[in-house]
Amino acid sequence: MPAAEPIDVKALVFDIFGTVVDWRSSLIADFTAWSATRGISGDWAGLVDAWRQAYVPSMDAVRKNPSAGFIMLDDLHRRSLEKLVVEFGIAGLTEDDLHYMTTGWHRLKPWPDVVAGLARLKSTYIISPLSNGNVGLLTRMAKTVGLPWDLILGGDLFEHYKPDPETYLGAARLLNLPPGQVMMVAAHNNDLDAAQKLGLKTAFVARPTEYGPLQKQDYEATGAWDIVAADFGGIADRLGC
Amino acid sequence: MPAAEPIDVKALVFDIFGTVVDWRSSLIADFTAWSATRGISGDWAGLVDAWRQAYVPSMDAVRKNPSAGFIMLDDLHRRSLEKLVVEFGIAGLTEDDLHYMTTGWHRLKPWPDVVAGLARLKSTYIISPLSNGNVGLLTRMAKTVGLPWDLILGGDLFEHYKPDPETYLGAARLLNLPPGQVMMVAAHNNDLDAAQKLGLKTAFVARPTEYGPLQKQDYEATGAWDIVAADFGGIADRLGC
Repeated sequence: MPAAEPIDVKALVFDIFGTVVDWRSSLIADFTAWSATRGISGDWAGLVDAWRQAYVPSMDAVRKNPSAGFIMLDDLHRRSLEKLVVEFGIAGLTEDDLHYMTTGWHRLKPWPDVVAGLARLKSTYIISPLSNGNVGLLTRMAKTVGLPWDLILGGDLFEHYKPDPETYLGAARLLNLPPGQVMMVAAHNNDLDAAQKLGLKTAFVARPTEYGPLQKQDYEATGAWDIVAADFGGIADRLGC
Repeated sequence: MPAAEPIDVKALVFDIFGTVVDWRSSLIADFTAWSATRGISGDWAGLVDAWRQAYVPSMDAVRKNPSAGFIMLDDLHRRSLEKLVVEFGIAGLTEDDLHYMTTGWHRLKPWPDVVAGLARLKSTYIISPLSNGNVGLLTRMAKTVGLPWDLILGGDLFEHYKPDPETYLGAARLLNLPPGQVMMVAAHNNDLDAAQKLGLKTAFVARPTEYGPLQKQDYEATGAWDIVAADFGGIADRLGC
């Protein structure tokens, strides 16, 4: 097999929800344990799945009505949650409980390969989230679960959500790099497609259990990405670090 | 002596040039060693001092003409340098040399107390630069010299330079904190004065050798700051971490 060609990038930016952290298992485990201590019962798997289903539509509503101003993801999560607890008939929640649940997205656990893979990549490259999460959410997540980012790039910096071009190009601009020296890492082909169209490099890792029984896509790479790897260690292998 | 009252902050944001890093000694040593290898001679101390003297006027020019667009600090440094190498009669510089010198600001060394102090503070608080440096400059500096920031807040995020209110209030907004839960740390009383007027908490450390023989002020605290400490370890002592 011929040696793979070198890829000239200086920074790797990462999708977070699903790519770096396992939001579904983390939230279900968190709420199951917490609700037992609070004496509250609920269909936590159902609520978490429905909450994630509300994610893209809630961002699309912001995107389609820019004159109403940008709304950060913590606030979108909270609004969706308030509807869902009614829908799921979860009673007895205080303001503190709703805050605890909303900030569950600050406590998401990384997939098993992530921390070691990021440490390898960080030795050679600038590493950052490039997420629809707000900077405060991403910062608190990194401290809580130990993600060694060099900086934090979130949707509220750009007042845009992915896949708007302002996010990918804004990341390159703030990194003082041409888009071609920035690599987007994601478990979602549509994220990489948007990044590649703007000139960024791309790396795909499959996270086939991200959505649990609701997973319908992203079992494999569907585009001509620069790297397709089994996990973050595989990306580091390919980049030689 | 009565115990000091607790200070309720969640994040500390740091001035960089002079407070965290010793720009003057770093640049003079860097250029002295590098120029010997390049066979270039010059009055490096004089050039570095003049470069820093151009810093505030160069930002003021941006501030007074916002319709011309924001210019990041790397570019202001480069423009000032191009004039100064002529003024100081430094001949034989290539484009690569000018780039090397401009990115000297990415390689500045921290004062001796900084890395250990930041590690203590990071265990309890979110820590970030809040600097007129651009995000790319601050990110590369952190990687080069080992500053353990949780995130990077630079002037280009806000398209404003300190002491414009947009910088201090923008930091609190991106951290999702009220200004009173953010502490500005600086060796410059005027930086703390601007932060305090906007409701941030304040901490002063003196860096009496920052400007070498040109130092004229900031030998001591001149305002009612929440903390006045000898070094970053003293700030950690006062905050109990």
